[in-house]
Amino acid sequence: MAKKGILISFEGGEGGGKSTQIVRIRERLTKAGYDVIAVREPGGTAVGEQIREVVLSSKNTGISFTTEVLLFQAARAQIYREIVLPSLKAGKVVLMDRTRDSSVAYQGVVRKFGKDLIEQLNNMSTQNTYPDLTFLLDVPEELGLERRAKAGGMDRLDMEAKNFHTQVRRAYLDLADEDTTGRWVIIDARQSLDDVENDIWQQIQKKLK
Amino acid sequence: MAKKGILISFEGGEGGGKSTQIVRIRERLTKAGYDVIAVREPGGTAVGEQIREVVLSSKNTGISFTTEVLLFQAARAQIYREIVLPSLKAGKVVLMDRTRDSSVAYQGVVRKFGKDLIEQLNNMSTQNTYPDLTFLLDVPEELGLERRAKAGGMDRLDMEAKNFHTQVRRAYLDLADEDTTGRWVIIDARQSLDDVENDIWQQIQKKLK
Repeated sequence: MAKKGILISFEGGEGGGKSTQIVRIRERLTKAGYDVIAVREPGGTAVGEQIREVVLSSKNTGISFTTEVLLFQAARAQIYREIVLPSLKAGKVVLMDRTRDSSVAYQGVVRKFGKDLIEQLNNMSTQNTYPDLTFLLDVPEELGLERRAKAGGMDRLDMEAKNFHTQVRRAYLDLADEDTTGRWVIIDARQSLDDVENDIWQQIQKKLK
Repeated sequence: MAKKGILISFEGGEGGGKSTQIVRIRERLTKAGYDVIAVREPGGTAVGEQIREVVLSSKNTGISFTTEVLLFQAARAQIYREIVLPSLKAGKVVLMDRTRDSSVAYQGVVRKFGKDLIEQLNNMSTQNTYPDLTFLLDVPEELGLERRAKAGGMDRLDMEAKNFHTQVRRAYLDLADEDTTGRWVIIDARQSLDDVENDIWQQIQKKLK
């Protein structure tokens, strides 16, 4: 598939400010004349929203980890097919609040499904698509959780033990470290929102040139 | 996982009489003193029913084949975890109206996702569980469709072109043919319901001895 656009993903544990930065970067890109679309998994499509409802509903406490893995991938398959791939084909800049690397970090590493299995599922759901640029918004887990608690709306995953968040952070840093394609950029998200935004913007400008 | 029960699956294209036979066999097993449970994918669990709704809803015409593959597997993971595996552990006879081989035939072979990929997903969702006995209720596709049309309630898959059904039948016969474990039994489902039931019952009795 001819890919003319650019896919940029934002990854990391809780409290790194992914969604705030996406709003800011989206605005900057739009002002700079780019055709931008921002998407969030799961959801983003009619089918995806229904799947999101199943995965995140607090009624569904009995959902198995395997079911969860497969539902996230099902929603991903639909969002890539309906939105991400057509947008890239049309030359847009696609900003994603989490995508394939979230599954690798949370489910492949921390939940121990294995990176290989998750990457195989990722390749299936994304039709072998990787981000061109992946920002890891890295914060020490204490700070991340503190920010998240202040903002309110802790969800089921937020409330997991601190050890879980330590493992997630480690998993992400390892993924960035092991990367051989140069797509990962680690951002120090302890900084102010403006400084984080500027760091990200610099890297995007380099990429867009 | 210690498995004390027996898992029996009913497979085949449309119009072979799977659900009718399951009702009959369930009754015979119950009368013979067995603890029997019959399940149907997708669905069968609270989470599974919600997934079933997403997969089969006529609103969701835009659902991609890949999403469909993953949703079926997600529902399967939940039904095995919640119902099938605990029932087998408890020594029950579990009758399944379609399970892993349906995915192999319809999606692996006919939709061309490949048997290996589907079997890998099957192993994930079933925790490497295979039926002990699989009945292929085989009918020529013309007869199957004719029966199905008479019974009413044709669904989206039923209405696919006849060529599709020919391919499904071929795929199932090949699976039974390639089997090296002896779990497949091909039943001539052109026969009367009583004759089909007797053929199945004979094989089950052999297995239960």
